[in-house]
Amino acid sequence: MQKVTIIGLGLIGGSIGMALKAAKLKDVEIVGHDKEPSASSKARKRGAVDKTEWNLLTSVSDASMVIIATPVLAIKEVMQQIAPKLSEGCTVTDTGSTKVNVLEWAKEYLPPSVSFVGGHPMAGKEESGVEHAEVDLFRDRTYCVIPGKDAASSAVKTVLGMVETLGAKPFFLDPVEHDMFVAGVSHLPLVMSAALVSATAKSPAWNEMARLASSGYRDVSRLASGNPEMNRDICVTNRQGVIHWIDAMIQELQDYRRLVSECGEELGKTFISVWETRERWLKGVHEHLGAEASAFAEIPKASESFTSMIIGDRLARRSRSLMEATEKKGEGKPWETPKK
Amino acid sequence: MQKVTIIGLGLIGGSIGMALKAAKLKDVEIVGHDKEPSASSKARKRGAVDKTEWNLLTSVSDASMVIIATPVLAIKEVMQQIAPKLSEGCTVTDTGSTKVNVLEWAKEYLPPSVSFVGGHPMAGKEESGVEHAEVDLFRDRTYCVIPGKDAASSAVKTVLGMVETLGAKPFFLDPVEHDMFVAGVSHLPLVMSAALVSATAKSPAWNEMARLASSGYRDVSRLASGNPEMNRDICVTNRQGVIHWIDAMIQELQDYRRLVSECGEELGKTFISVWETRERWLKGVHEHLGAEASAFAEIPKASESFTSMIIGDRLARRSRSLMEATEKKGEGKPWETPKK
Repeated sequence: MQKVTIIGLGLIGGSIGMALKAAKLKDVEIVGHDKEPSASSKARKRGAVDKTEWNLLTSVSDASMVIIATPVLAIKEVMQQIAPKLSEGCTVTDTGSTKVNVLEWAKEYLPPSVSFVGGHPMAGKEESGVEHAEVDLFRDRTYCVIPGKDAASSAVKTVLGMVETLGAKPFFLDPVEHDMFVAGVSHLPLVMSAALVSATAKSPAWNEMARLASSGYRDVSRLASGNPEMNRDICVTNRQGVIHWIDAMIQELQDYRRLVSECGEELGKTFISVWETRERWLKGVHEHLGAEASAFAEIPKASESFTSMIIGDRLARRSRSLMEATEKKGEGKPWETPKK
Repeated sequence: MQKVTIIGLGLIGGSIGMALKAAKLKDVEIVGHDKEPSASSKARKRGAVDKTEWNLLTSVSDASMVIIATPVLAIKEVMQQIAPKLSEGCTVTDTGSTKVNVLEWAKEYLPPSVSFVGGHPMAGKEESGVEHAEVDLFRDRTYCVIPGKDAASSAVKTVLGMVETLGAKPFFLDPVEHDMFVAGVSHLPLVMSAALVSATAKSPAWNEMARLASSGYRDVSRLASGNPEMNRDICVTNRQGVIHWIDAMIQELQDYRRLVSECGEELGKTFISVWETRERWLKGVHEHLGAEASAFAEIPKASESFTSMIIGDRLARRSRSLMEATEKKGEGKPWETPKK
């Protein structure tokens, strides 16, 4: 019996647990831990874990794999606490939204006998908490895989196995690139959502404006309803990236201000251009998913046993081809920082 | 037989037609016109109109009501063209996103023998075109009603009757207030969505970033996929409001930049505060809708005939009580500019 421990039973940790359980992995036990007893009890009721363990250290002892699914800043503390209890050869991963700091903490606090492979699933929703967890939350979504410098190849394969079990698509990235990229497409939208809410709500006419706010306002402000602690952690652990993109957005809004105050012709062209860009993006996402989905479909599903997925032949072949594809792009081994 | 003419058979015009048709109004004929013959043919196929008329002037002759559902700038041209053909006593309304210019055009171009009552349904979706029209697009949504200064009371009631037939909730507003309010909750989000797409897509790393862009990016950028012509018109006809709110957003983003670069404590409080604000807004929308819905439920549905809704006793009572409720708030008659 192999033990997989999920620390942090919120939306992400709970959804991972549900997907792993749904795969009916043989000889694998999913153990959950959350500092909030109510979260643990909800996770058990939702069937996101086989059992929960209130003691953090006990929860990771003898575990083959530990998945840290807490807000980013808590990852540091969790690593410090669990380090002495981790078994030799254990694979540790996380689901944090930023990666430079997380990889630094792993290097500093985790023992050399374990491997850290950072992860970041590109999925989420407005609601937080295990009560909103979904077995298919990660299906067909990009899942960033950012191995630590000294991570064993087997640990990388273990995380790839987990990613595939979730139905997600692994994407190898360098931690610095990861943080700068997600700052633009994930953390900037978050700050914009929050800024939209705070800017409009401070207007003396907010009561009337609120009645007029409709689906457009709802969508653009959606990320302001995310977990405030997570949101703060994201910004604090990705300061440089977030500030870079806030500056870019201020510049962009100044450009739009000029376009609006002018005659409108260039503004019209700009709206056409962003319309086209977004269509291409949506189309690209679908095509990409379509291609990936069919490629995966050709390979027999190897989820009878989580351990066989990790070290089994079929997965080994699959992960090798993934890594080769990335290496071909001249980026070296996918889990090493590319030389520039 | 009374004739109701819809000019512009896109998402909004088509959805209005579908809702009016679904109400099975007695002795009312819904006639559609669109400068694109393909839109007319699609509208007929979707059952959004009883018939279409390719000639704009013929389409409005003898009409009791004309609904202009074109992009904002086209409203001016339509008014200029149809003015000589409008019957005495005709009620003219529109669905444009801005109102100051539209009311000025109505005053300038429409004959004094007709009444103009501006309208603005607070509903929409990413896709445009009659193929995406929905019979329930306006159900339980706020519908701004902004009567012209000299609009006859019966014309205001006619538009209220239409609003109720759509299942929407009328909200009387002064045109200047309307434009400034929607600039904050509707046009600012639109500019932000477009600016997010153009700022990120111009990055040299856009190809990689696009793979990481997920549901957060999708939602915050959604409005960039709206009709580019409509979006330009909105900004051009509401320059002052849009620029005011772009400036407010730049200021807000500068505040967030400072919070991110600081220790993070105040940033955490800000994220909690916007989370609460948005929850209150969502709750308020629901409560408001709930109250309105039950208030309406007490009154028997009067949609057997559009004409009886317009001048019938039951609607007269209902619209009177609505107007009284607004007057009680010390705003004078709801369709007059409040004295300040």
